Amino acid sequence: MPLRTQYKISKIPEMTIRRLSVYTRCLQQLEVDGVKTVSSQELAERFNLNSAQVRKDLAYFGEFGVRGVGYYVSGLKAELQKILGLDREWRVALVGFGNLGSALYNYKGFARQGFHIAAIFDEDAAKTGRTPDGTPILLLRDLPREVKARNLQIGIVAVPAEAAQTVTDRLVSSGIRAILNFAPANLKVPKEVRLKDVDLSIELETLSFALAQSSR
Amino acid sequence: MPLRTQYKISKIPEMTIRRLSVYTRCLQQLEVDGVKTVSSQELAERFNLNSAQVRKDLAYFGEFGVRGVGYYVSGLKAELQKILGLDREWRVALVGFGNLGSALYNYKGFARQGFHIAAIFDEDAAKTGRTPDGTPILLLRDLPREVKARNLQIGIVAVPAEAAQTVTDRLVSSGIRAILNFAPANLKVPKEVRLKDVDLSIELETLSFALAQSSR
Repeated sequence: MPLRTQYKISKIPEMTIRRLSVYTRCLQQLEVDGVKTVSSQELAERFNLNSAQVRKDLAYFGEFGVRGVGYYVSGLKAELQKILGLDREWRVALVGFGNLGSALYNYKGFARQGFHIAAIFDEDAAKTGRTPDGTPILLLRDLPREVKARNLQIGIVAVPAEAAQTVTDRLVSSGIRAILNFAPANLKVPKEVRLKDVDLSIELETLSFALAQSSR
Repeated sequence: MPLRTQYKISKIPEMTIRRLSVYTRCLQQLEVDGVKTVSSQELAERFNLNSAQVRKDLAYFGEFGVRGVGYYVSGLKAELQKILGLDREWRVALVGFGNLGSALYNYKGFARQGFHIAAIFDEDAAKTGRTPDGTPILLLRDLPREVKARNLQIGIVAVPAEAAQTVTDRLVSSGIRAILNFAPANLKVPKEVRLKDVDLSIELETLSFALAQSSR
């Protein structure tokens, strides 16, 4: 399976990356079920995907199919995990330990994909200490020192909108280059920092769109 | 601004719908700032969008631009809100009132876009009662009756993965036709029900992809 190494990251649609994540989960499931090889048609049928889309998405990264065989499930899964950076552990700083921060900390999906919340930060000294699992809860003002000492690579912003830009500025000046933001705020970051906003109401709007259309 | 009424909902890419949500937010901001008209180029520059994409996305729904003027901010915002079903209030049932459910209940973005969490359900009788804002917290087993009595239209699943299918089946049999699922579970619903999964780790994977690529 020759992996293309000359592809331009900026040319790859974000939806393709998101679908690679979905394909990886499908392949994990097939592996659990003991399936060794799968065609794009079988993959599409079983998981309700579009087989032409699968082939097009994968083609950005290499030639993974084998004529007359399809894809080797374990091999393709490993390649996709490598592309997505899931072949390693990422050390995550979670900032904000209110309801949302606690929910994100307890969200099992992160650890399963290699995202390890290695430290939690909050400005409330009363919250500092350790979680029942032993994850340190630290003071927000110690962020710069702790990011370096603990080799934290990704930041999650789970603070109220009013505090989000300040927290983001601190993450950036502490050396964090990838930030997942849950605050409903329009954050500014330098060009070299990747910012991904999660706007939970956009998810609901794809549903209200469908409901509104069906009642037209 | 002639609104196309003959478009096929199934032909419209989900990313277009998601971007309409983003455009709506941008237009809201422009309205707050007192801007009356805007061109696709100005919109793109100010909010870091792609102007060709803006025009293409809008073209699915109608001809909104006026030659030499651009778009009327308030008019376009109102049209997009109508398309997205944001010109009315949707009554939402939130199922599961643990950390995630509490975080979602307190998430301000929902109400701002017209999604009103009108009732919360949990299987734990100790949690029933009312939130400080007065939202009823009801027993899960009363879901069918309450969905009808309270005219609930959208369900949010915020329970552990093991319980998610059971909860979803109950929402469906109670008449809910749109479900937003936060549980890391592969849920099955009948064809006529819209299911939208929110997989928070996929958001992190678009970041790890970027970090992994930049360290190649």
